[in-house]
This record gives sequence, structure tokens and C-alpha cells, in this order.
Amino acid sequence: MNPYDALLQRSREIAVYNSAASLLSWDQETYMPPKAGAYRAEQLSQMAGLTHRLGTAPEVGDWLKACEDKLPATADAEESAMREANVREWRRDYDRATKLPARLVEEFARTTSLSRDAWAQARRDSSFPAFAPWLEKILSLTREQAECWGYSTCRYDALLEGYEPGARAADLTPVFADLQKQLSPLLPALEKITGAVDPARIEGEYPFDLQRALNQEIAQAIGFDFEAGRIDTTVHPFCTEIGAHDCRLTTRYDLKDFTSSLSGTMHEAGHGLYTQGLDAAQFGTPMGTFVSLGIHESQSRLWENQVGRSRAFWAHWYPRAQEVFPALKALPLEEFWLLVNRVKPSHIRVEADEATYNLHIILRFEIEQKLVSGDLAVNDLPAAWNARFEQIFGLSVPDDARGCLQDTHWALGLIGYFPTYTLGNLNSAQLYAAAASHDPAMVNELAGGQYGRLLGWMREKIHRHGRRYSPPELIERATGEPLRATYFLDYLKGKYGLN
Amino acid sequence: MNPYDALLQRSREIAVYNSAASLLSWDQETYMPPKAGAYRAEQLSQMAGLTHRLGTAPEVGDWLKACEDKLPATADAEESAMREANVREWRRDYDRATKLPARLVEEFARTTSLSRDAWAQARRDSSFPAFAPWLEKILSLTREQAECWGYSTCRYDALLEGYEPGARAADLTPVFADLQKQLSPLLPALEKITGAVDPARIEGEYPFDLQRALNQEIAQAIGFDFEAGRIDTTVHPFCTEIGAHDCRLTTRYDLKDFTSSLSGTMHEAGHGLYTQGLDAAQFGTPMGTFVSLGIHESQSRLWENQVGRSRAFWAHWYPRAQEVFPALKALPLEEFWLLVNRVKPSHIRVEADEATYNLHIILRFEIEQKLVSGDLAVNDLPAAWNARFEQIFGLSVPDDARGCLQDTHWALGLIGYFPTYTLGNLNSAQLYAAAASHDPAMVNELAGGQYGRLLGWMREKIHRHGRRYSPPELIERATGEPLRATYFLDYLKGKYGLN
Repeated sequence: MNPYDALLQRSREIAVYNSAASLLSWDQETYMPPKAGAYRAEQLSQMAGLTHRLGTAPEVGDWLKACEDKLPATADAEESAMREANVREWRRDYDRATKLPARLVEEFARTTSLSRDAWAQARRDSSFPAFAPWLEKILSLTREQAECWGYSTCRYDALLEGYEPGARAADLTPVFADLQKQLSPLLPALEKITGAVDPARIEGEYPFDLQRALNQEIAQAIGFDFEAGRIDTTVHPFCTEIGAHDCRLTTRYDLKDFTSSLSGTMHEAGHGLYTQGLDAAQFGTPMGTFVSLGIHESQSRLWENQVGRSRAFWAHWYPRAQEVFPALKALPLEEFWLLVNRVKPSHIRVEADEATYNLHIILRFEIEQKLVSGDLAVNDLPAAWNARFEQIFGLSVPDDARGCLQDTHWALGLIGYFPTYTLGNLNSAQLYAAAASHDPAMVNELAGGQYGRLLGWMREKIHRHGRRYSPPELIERATGEPLRATYFLDYLKGKYGLN
Repeated sequence: MNPYDALLQRSREIAVYNSAASLLSWDQETYMPPKAGAYRAEQLSQMAGLTHRLGTAPEVGDWLKACEDKLPATADAEESAMREANVREWRRDYDRATKLPARLVEEFARTTSLSRDAWAQARRDSSFPAFAPWLEKILSLTREQAECWGYSTCRYDALLEGYEPGARAADLTPVFADLQKQLSPLLPALEKITGAVDPARIEGEYPFDLQRALNQEIAQAIGFDFEAGRIDTTVHPFCTEIGAHDCRLTTRYDLKDFTSSLSGTMHEAGHGLYTQGLDAAQFGTPMGTFVSLGIHESQSRLWENQVGRSRAFWAHWYPRAQEVFPALKALPLEEFWLLVNRVKPSHIRVEADEATYNLHIILRFEIEQKLVSGDLAVNDLPAAWNARFEQIFGLSVPDDARGCLQDTHWALGLIGYFPTYTLGNLNSAQLYAAAASHDPAMVNELAGGQYGRLLGWMREKIHRHGRRYSPPELIERATGEPLRATYFLDYLKGKYGLN
């Protein structure tokens, strides 16, 4: 077997084990009985150790060197380019993985599987002290990982690299600061415009089964293939890929407000459309894998916000929602639209409107850098969070469940992940603007409940490329320019008539 | 590490991978989207190959030899006995596994994962020709396995050994023939007694949610721990263990008759009680594993039939069922009891009453022996099935969906499995008789909806022993005598007042 085919086979073999581990994780969030948690941690730890060993075996290094010396030839130029991209990305993965000892990989997987339950309980009880030892342990393992991976200027960069290749804290900081500077002055006007309707007017009885059926109808309409995926219920919505042609979404339900489960569905279905748009024939190789979380999030936010909170979207779907939930007939479309676009500072990130959402991210980005550097001690986290939250939002934090315990990320060991959400927001606005300017008819199509042109554009410009291009390169190829926050700000202003 | 600890570690490592594969299989039956089937087959095939390699590695043979020469000493006699049993069973597994090439193991796993879908479609269409090539392929792989394993008198024994260690076709044949000889003359009387009530009287509206809640209430009452398990919906009910403290049941629902999903639940919960009664500290070793399918089935049939179709059981639960389904108030307990015990020859095994059920098994036992030996060609299967069915049951077979396509076993590669069902029926009657004679108060407890004494007896006599004793030895230790069909026949006669 030539070294390229050997790498290909190993990559697909690892993907099979990783996909089995994905099912273990999905099940842990959806259906696993409570007492199974301890053994589940062992299962995930052992699977992580197995794939780490397979990915870092000496022969992989030999095959990589051989391919870098001379890539086995193909007559097809497209196939050659794909091979080059695969080898480049396998090298990246290999270099990163070989820096970690197997012991650390297994301990990290075991610890984060167990800490999830500890966090969920601490959050229910709003008791930070119950979670603090777990966070301490995860931070310690995370710092150890970062030291293994190495970095030029700050330790946090070693983590960020795992979620957003090439991104550096020093580059993000001024972008986020500028965004905050331009966003904050807009908020009072947005709050005023969208505050004209009493939010209690949307409250009603929205039975679970009806919500679920409507969510499924809409997700299918935007293009999600339920023959190759499904949707379940969890406390924390997510999207995960279990294997080729198997993409699982989850959402959560508020029986008094159907828009909560629907926006969760739109968001996760946006992720799912990216997953389903990857080349299934390349599953298990870099060319068949998403490129970064900032790009992934651009797709979820695009469908959740640019599409799912637009006037065009609701012009089509609101009559259908009124059919399903007749009480909505008393609420005119324009007022409903203002309510689903209501801007108001609030405590919970995942319930935040699309304007203030980024401020939640900026807070987390600041704080997790300090936790990783050691400038902020775990025990001081609640006080630091609450103080900074009040500065940014002008609200005091009533308890840790609505403060530093609200997100699952740190408990899952996902540190350095948060900034990709705001990158996603900026990416989504720039991509949507490019798509609309490329094909203005697409926007008219949306008002008719047709999404094929927009989805087709994303498939062509983003999905099908897998990890062929770096995230900044992908955005520049798709939109003709590097990422700029101005598209996001213009989108917000335009939406509320402030431009 | 001493050789015993090395074996222990390897055994537990394999169990982790097997448990991940169990989740893949469970998910395939419950929640997997349709297009994911092809990749799922790859996942299961690769997991099977991995555990086969780990279990048959040369070092395992070395450790076994070392332990057989001199078992590392322990001061604790009980621990020593457990170690001896583990080594004996590891040897059995190792000798059996090393006879199969990895290629055959992987191909078998892939083929049976794919053929499941082909069979389900063929059954929906009642089209045997669509399934025939799959059965041909599975039989060919199965024969190859049997030849690898070896046998003394007939090839079928090599398969039977995988489900019921020590059982031989030549020993089962006279037992089953005798059972059939004594059972058949009873049937007309049983049919007459239980046919006094029109089965349409139980038909009504039984909403899914209410059925599910009642099933869960009853499964919990008999002792199934829902903190360490759950129940889902499938076309074919089953019970599977996903890991320590994680046992999953499934059932199926007839919205016109609640007893269908309930008897499925009782049956699978019976399996689940055995699983939950194994020593969790020994999970992943022979001492923490069920001993045979005939013993497993004794537990499911005990709770489904000896308990779940008894007068005592319904004296307690029928008033509760009438609360949940008020239409039942028009049907008196005695008539209801006759209906859930209705004896009548029918086409579908899984819907058969407990008397005629064994005739379904006897038919399959005969036919699969001929398929394995090659005396019956796949293309001749429907005709052979239909002819023999009519001889035994006096009914003609209307189509293959209600004939030779009805069961999932052969499509899953489970050939040699069917006879364990009748062994289970005989075991369950003998075990129940022994428990009742050991502790007559137990039977009174049942009428009060209390199941702790009966479950405790099974835990003590069966569950906790894992694979320590062979199935015949376990039955003899528990009941004081070898397995005899007379307990089952006496149970039937006693139930219907024929003795």
C-alpha cells in the first residue's frame, strides 16, 4: 500500500472509532440512565486512548514524511489538490496529537465525562463550590495540554488553535473590543424599538408534540434531511455527527413559548446543514470534515438569525404557526416579529438576542483567558464574573446558575471555544451579505419559503470544501474580502431601520 | 503484572469496546436514521474486528497457560473460586475465538448489520426472494464459522454451543419430541377452556402514553431499576446491556390492546432483572456475565408467564389497569384473565400463547438444522416451512411475512439460537416450582404486588453466579434436580385446572 493510501485507511479507521465515541456522548446527553455515568466515562476514556494511539503511531509519521517527500501521483488535478490538503491537515493533527501523552488524553476524557454530571447538579443547586474542584481539575489538565502543544505568546492560543486553526487571542482582542465599542451605543435604540410590544403577549399553551412537529416541518423545509438525521430533546441543544449520513440535532422546549425550541432547532439545523453538506464520500478524512467552529457557527447563526429572524421568513411561516397554535391569531405578524427580535440585556447567553449575545462572549473570552493564565483563581470566579457582568450589562447577577455556572462548556473541557461564537456571528453576516449580493433573487425566494438557492450557495462556497482552505481563506474566497465586523453591524442596523 | 491481572485487564478492556458496540446496535434498532445503515455496518464490523484481535492475541494464550499452570494465589477462598471460574471461561472464549480468522468475524458483523435492513424490507413486502440472497450469504458464513469451531457429530452443535454451552442437538431432540408428544394432546382442552371469552372484548383505545406509563410502573414494581436502565420502542422487543448499570429494554405497542406492550415489557424486564442482578463489580469478566441464553430466557419467561399471566398478578394489577383504562371496567377480572391466557394455534411466534409457543420453536429447530446441514436449500425454505407448519398447527400459512420471514434471528446471523427459548420455558417452570416450594409465602406476596422474595431467590440462586456454573449445573444447584419437562407440563395443567 502506498503511504497516502495507508494514511487514508488509518484516518477512516480512526473516524469509525471517533464516531462510536460520538454516539456514546450523544447518548449521554439524551437517553443514558443516571447510574451509567461512571462507566460511560470509562468508555469515553478508553475510546479516546485508542484513537490517540492509532493517530500517533510511529508509522503515521513515516507515511506523512513519505507523502511530504513525494505525494503519490494521480492523473486528476482535483484529486491531487484534495490529497495535498489531506496530507497538510493530517500533519497538523499528527503534530498536535503526538505532543500529548496518552495518559493525559484518557484522563481528560474521563474527567470531562464525569464533571458534566457534577456541573449539572451544581447548576441545579446554584452551588459553585460543588463545581469548583472539577473546574480546578479541568483547568489543570487543560494547562498541561496547552504546555504540551506549545505557543508563541500566550497559553490560551494553544487552546484556541484546537477550535479555530490560526486564530490568536492577540488578534481577536482588538476585533472584539471594536465590536463592543460600536455595538454598545446601538443597544438603547434597539431596545427601545423592539420593546414596543409586551413579551407576555406571546405566552400561551404550546403542546410539546405540536412544537416538535412544526420544528421538524421547518427544519425539513430549509433542507435538513431527516432520512440522514434526527432531532431529540436535551437540556443543552447541540448538533453532532455520528457517522456518514447520520447527523443528530437536539433542542429544548418551553411549553409557554414555541419560539424557544424553534430557534434552537434553526440553530442546530444550521449546523446540521453544514454537516450534511460535507462530501460523504470523504467522510473520515480532512476533506470530509468541518474546518473550524467559527465556520460551523456561521452556518448555525445564518439559519437561526439572518434567515430565521427575518421578516421574509415569518411572512411565510407565521400563518402556518397560527394554524398550528390558533391563539397566535390575536398577535399580528409585525408585533410577533418584534418579539422574536427583542433586544434586551439578560443573564443567560443562550437566550440572548443577537445583538447582546456578543457581549456574553466577550465576557467569557476575557474571563477564560485569566483562568488559563492563572491570573484568576477558580474560587474568585463568581465574584469576578458578577462584577464584570454588571459593568458590561448594567445588571446584577442573582445567583451562579444565572452567572458563571450557566454554560456547559468548561465542564466539558471546552476552554478557548467561546470566541468562535462571535466569529460565527461575524462570518454569518458577511456570508449572507455576499450571497444576497451575488444573487438578489435568493432573498425573494426566502419570502416564498424556498431555501434552495441560499443553501446551494453555502454548499458551493463553504460546505463542500471540508478542511481544504483555512477559515480566513475560506471566508475570503466566498465573500471576496477578509472578515470584517462591519457586515454584522450593518445587518443589525438595517434590520431595525437604523441605517 | 501477574498473568491473572493481565487477563482481567484485557477482559475489561474488551468489555468496554463490546459495550460501545452494544450501543451502536441498540441505536440501530431504536433511533438511527435510515440512511446511516451502511456506515453503521462498518462501525460494527470494525468494532468486532478490534475485540477479536484483542481477545485472540498471542499474549492472551500465554497468560492463560501461566494461570492454568499456577493460578496466582489469594487468601480468600471465594475469590480463588471466582478466579478459577474466570480462567476456565476465558479459556473457553479464547479457544473458540482463535479458531475464527479476523476476516470472517468482520465480514459476519458487516453482513448481519446490512441484512437486517434487507430482511425488514422483505418482511414488509412479504417477499422471500428479496431476502433469500442474504440468508444464503449468512448461512455460508455461518457454516464457515461452524467448520472453524469444529464439532463431534453435527455442524449445528458448533452453533448451539455459542448460545447454550454444552447443549447438543442429539440431546435436545428427544426432549423436544417428548414435550411435543405430551403438549399436543393438551391443546384442544386448553383452547376450549380459554376460548370461552370473545377476544374482541379486550379491544379498545389504549393511548401510547398511558400504556408506557403503566408498563414502567409495573416493571419498576417487579424490581427493574430505571436509574440503571430505560425502556424504548422498537418493532422487535429486546433487552441489551450497554455497560455497567445500563440495561435497556424495548417493547412495541398495539393501540387496541394494552396487554401486548405489557407482556413485552414483562418479558424484557425479566431479562433486565437478570442483567441487573449480575455482580456489577465483576462487569466485563465471566463472573459478571450471563451464563447462557436458556438461563436468560428462564428469567424473561418467569416474569412474563409464571408471574405476569398468573391470577395473583392480575388480582393486584387489574384494578390499577382499570383505573388507567376505564373501559376495562366492563370486563370482569376472570374473563380478562382467560383472555391473557388464551391458548390458540396462530402464525406468529412472538404473539403465541405459552403452550403453543414451544411448537413454534420445535419447527424452527428442525428447519434450521436442515438449513445448516444443507439438506434444505434456501429457495425451498418457504415451501418446507409452510408444509411443516400445517402439519404441526393445522393451519395454512397465508404469506411469508406470517411464515418463514417473521423472525429477525436468521437475518441477524443468530442460527442455533431458537432452541434456547424452549429451554428457557422449561427452566422457568422448574425454577418457579422450586422457589414456591422453598418459600410458599412468596406466592402470597405476589398477590399483594410484592416481588422481593421471588426476585431475591433468583438473585441468590441464578443471577449472582454469572458464568461460575454451567447451565445444567446451575439448574441442578438451584432446584435440586436436573432439568425435566414435567414442571412445565404440570404448570400448564395446574393453571387451567387439568390436573
